[in-house]
Amino acid sequence: MNTSTSSPLSRASSTPLAQQLAQRFAERIGQRLLLPGTRLPSVRECAKHHGVSPYTVVAAYDQLLAQGLLEARKQRGFFVREPALAQSRSAPTHSLPTRAAGRPFDATTLIRGMFQAEARTAPGLGTLPAEWLDLPMIQGALRKVVAQSEGPDQLALQYGEPGGDARLRMALARRLADVGIAVAPEQLLTTVGATHALDLVTRGLLQPGDAVLVDDPGWAIEYARLTQAGMRLLPVPRGADGPDLAVMQRLVEQHRPRMYVTVSVLHNPTGHTLNLAQAHQILKLAETGDFMIVEDDTYAFLAPNHAPRLSALDGLRRTIYVSGFSKILTPAWRVGYLAASAERIKKLTDLKLLSTLTTSPLLERAVALCLEQGQLRRHAERVATRLDAARLRAVKLAQGAGCHFVTPPQGLFGWLDVGADTERLAQRLLDAGWLTAPGRLFSATRQAGTLMRINFATAQDPKFWALLASSDAK
Amino acid sequence: MNTSTSSPLSRASSTPLAQQLAQRFAERIGQRLLLPGTRLPSVRECAKHHGVSPYTVVAAYDQLLAQGLLEARKQRGFFVREPALAQSRSAPTHSLPTRAAGRPFDATTLIRGMFQAEARTAPGLGTLPAEWLDLPMIQGALRKVVAQSEGPDQLALQYGEPGGDARLRMALARRLADVGIAVAPEQLLTTVGATHALDLVTRGLLQPGDAVLVDDPGWAIEYARLTQAGMRLLPVPRGADGPDLAVMQRLVEQHRPRMYVTVSVLHNPTGHTLNLAQAHQILKLAETGDFMIVEDDTYAFLAPNHAPRLSALDGLRRTIYVSGFSKILTPAWRVGYLAASAERIKKLTDLKLLSTLTTSPLLERAVALCLEQGQLRRHAERVATRLDAARLRAVKLAQGAGCHFVTPPQGLFGWLDVGADTERLAQRLLDAGWLTAPGRLFSATRQAGTLMRINFATAQDPKFWALLASSDAK
Repeated sequence: MNTSTSSPLSRASSTPLAQQLAQRFAERIGQRLLLPGTRLPSVRECAKHHGVSPYTVVAAYDQLLAQGLLEARKQRGFFVREPALAQSRSAPTHSLPTRAAGRPFDATTLIRGMFQAEARTAPGLGTLPAEWLDLPMIQGALRKVVAQSEGPDQLALQYGEPGGDARLRMALARRLADVGIAVAPEQLLTTVGATHALDLVTRGLLQPGDAVLVDDPGWAIEYARLTQAGMRLLPVPRGADGPDLAVMQRLVEQHRPRMYVTVSVLHNPTGHTLNLAQAHQILKLAETGDFMIVEDDTYAFLAPNHAPRLSALDGLRRTIYVSGFSKILTPAWRVGYLAASAERIKKLTDLKLLSTLTTSPLLERAVALCLEQGQLRRHAERVATRLDAARLRAVKLAQGAGCHFVTPPQGLFGWLDVGADTERLAQRLLDAGWLTAPGRLFSATRQAGTLMRINFATAQDPKFWALLASSDAK
Repeated sequence: MNTSTSSPLSRASSTPLAQQLAQRFAERIGQRLLLPGTRLPSVRECAKHHGVSPYTVVAAYDQLLAQGLLEARKQRGFFVREPALAQSRSAPTHSLPTRAAGRPFDATTLIRGMFQAEARTAPGLGTLPAEWLDLPMIQGALRKVVAQSEGPDQLALQYGEPGGDARLRMALARRLADVGIAVAPEQLLTTVGATHALDLVTRGLLQPGDAVLVDDPGWAIEYARLTQAGMRLLPVPRGADGPDLAVMQRLVEQHRPRMYVTVSVLHNPTGHTLNLAQAHQILKLAETGDFMIVEDDTYAFLAPNHAPRLSALDGLRRTIYVSGFSKILTPAWRVGYLAASAERIKKLTDLKLLSTLTTSPLLERAVALCLEQGQLRRHAERVATRLDAARLRAVKLAQGAGCHFVTPPQGLFGWLDVGADTERLAQRLLDAGWLTAPGRLFSATRQAGTLMRINFATAQDPKFWALLASSDAK
């Protein structure tokens, strides 16, 4: 798939083998597919894997050492170097959690990998594959917006409203009513995708040093954002039965967290959805412990409307609801939003002005058109049906390959135990052209392990599973 | 213009006059057109201005007191109350500059005012009026992008690249070469308007507590962002001769700032453009004092290409260049960018991933199309010619009204001394339907005064100037 980084080394090329090998590692380091701190394969392993002599590997590693991309550690082998960040300035005067400054550089790995052009149908993909999206709906809505932009709204020529396109907010209020959340349009704020919404919440409602509960496993970008902003992460284990409420209670008592950031419905990567009893328990804990809950409902359209949302139970008193359209409509429009109390929305609107001034009213109106006419709802129903079938197939393939689902397969993602270290496996699979999502990327403590997230829609190729099962890949 | 807040009180209405008056003040407080801390007119003044009895005014003020919107201060009159922010939580453990938490709420005032739907042709406007923009070019480019979105890039269906659309970055590199700045596409990062670029720079390259040099007068949103992020502002007076370099030198020696954020070309609000000698001096100071310079070139397309950019002289070593398309193409697309050293761009790209994941590749491609075919350049030339004529007319009108230009009129904005307190004047003018930009919004120290920014393109109506000149408005 990814030509330059996955094809075999070429003996016919005028470039020496050692240089080809060095280039390949250098590219992956540059693209952060190999992270700082990662140990490279031993010379012997690498030679065997690429069918070259150990001398060639040594020559390649030497080149990388000379380029400053690797470092040799005595008795331990070769490691990817930390990038030389400018460290000349004096230490900040307030205390931040250890390694806070360095962490975000790690955690954007998966994302960066995702954007490598050729890797987009990979089993590690975080979205629906492009061919599952409804291009005619997307293009039609945008064409309509362009055609209408001369109208009285002059959408094409002005900043959007600070809170977001009024018609989109109306449509969102109706949509939220369908999942049991009653909001007025003034309780909604549009953002540049759900990511921007989560970022505004972090900046507007927390202070550096605050403790924040997070699901573990969970979404690496969220860990990275919170850490970068100086928060202390309190990981709550989340398994087949949902968040470990006993651990959560202990963390609440010990650390007095300000916030719990969670995906309650079709959690990434476990696929778990809270049941009513769990939702109620969590809200009681939030009441006792006096913390806010940020409910990231990114996969809303892939789940039934009756799945209990914390924000529905709570009525947006302690909860802040975040969602977007990248996982169902298109990631290209970058339209997300949040719903909260009117007071919080005011504060977050001011922060939005400081961060992006406004968001594009054109793309927001296009989303409104897709919502208003029920097109998006019908598309989501078709996707859900198709995903059910894909999931059945992928589960069979995975089980045939000796993998074990840690949590019951649901939604877009499967959370798998493949019985081998997934960090190293991911490198091997990449050599064969498959981008995967190893478990470390979803671990709040960055633990390596045998877990892996797969995307049911893009894990349909038996060749992938055969390779995964073969000892060659492990 | 703005119907609900500017029409005369109605005796025919079933709503009592006092209530109408109270509602009007309440709306303006809600829209932040009246800021916390602002003194309301005396009862006598207000009665005279609205043609009602003092009893009516007292009744209206009483209603506002009861609603918690005003407070009475002994011997001094009625003031807009600070909003009751949630102050229940404990103080953060690190020290922030005094009032930091409260300031951003003030500083989004002008912006919020700007978004009041009916006020868009106001003399205080911060952009070109919509009718000066090239709608056919804008619509044509978007239509092309929609039509092309099925192509191999699949622009419509995928996240953009982290750094931004590759074609836009190519076009930007060529554009920057025209103003003397040599960059590779890897030194460019696209953002959600220039605001997002400035926000990433603040978050990525500064730490809370850092001292930052800013132009005074300058752009309120920039002050607000820096203050909100915990920076200490060091205002450098900027007058007809540009930044006061003696003051700057003293501030550098005393406070060791980390950064200078400046608009070097067609500065907002003074219109001043650095000359070569000033640019050279500033860069020498930056060298000696070891600080970065963020050059906000928001008005780039309204200025000649040969205007000296700090980033051109410096070659993006200490400088970070920020610009966008809201002031020449359309504010609705929210496309901006920054140019910097490759190392800084890497760091800021990671931060962009945490803040918005990516930006919309569709809108970026549309900007690329406008740039590639020279359409935008030709449009900018037409706008510059038209603006020259508008400026001549507005200057005559202003001088006829007894106003004095503090700095030579250039570019889009005029920086005027109107000989009366512009904070109170702005309220009076708003009563008559004119949204203006009083000097306090551009002052780093929030000083009231007799200065005001006008937009040459939208200050063409003799009625506005006649009202400004009349004692009634003052």
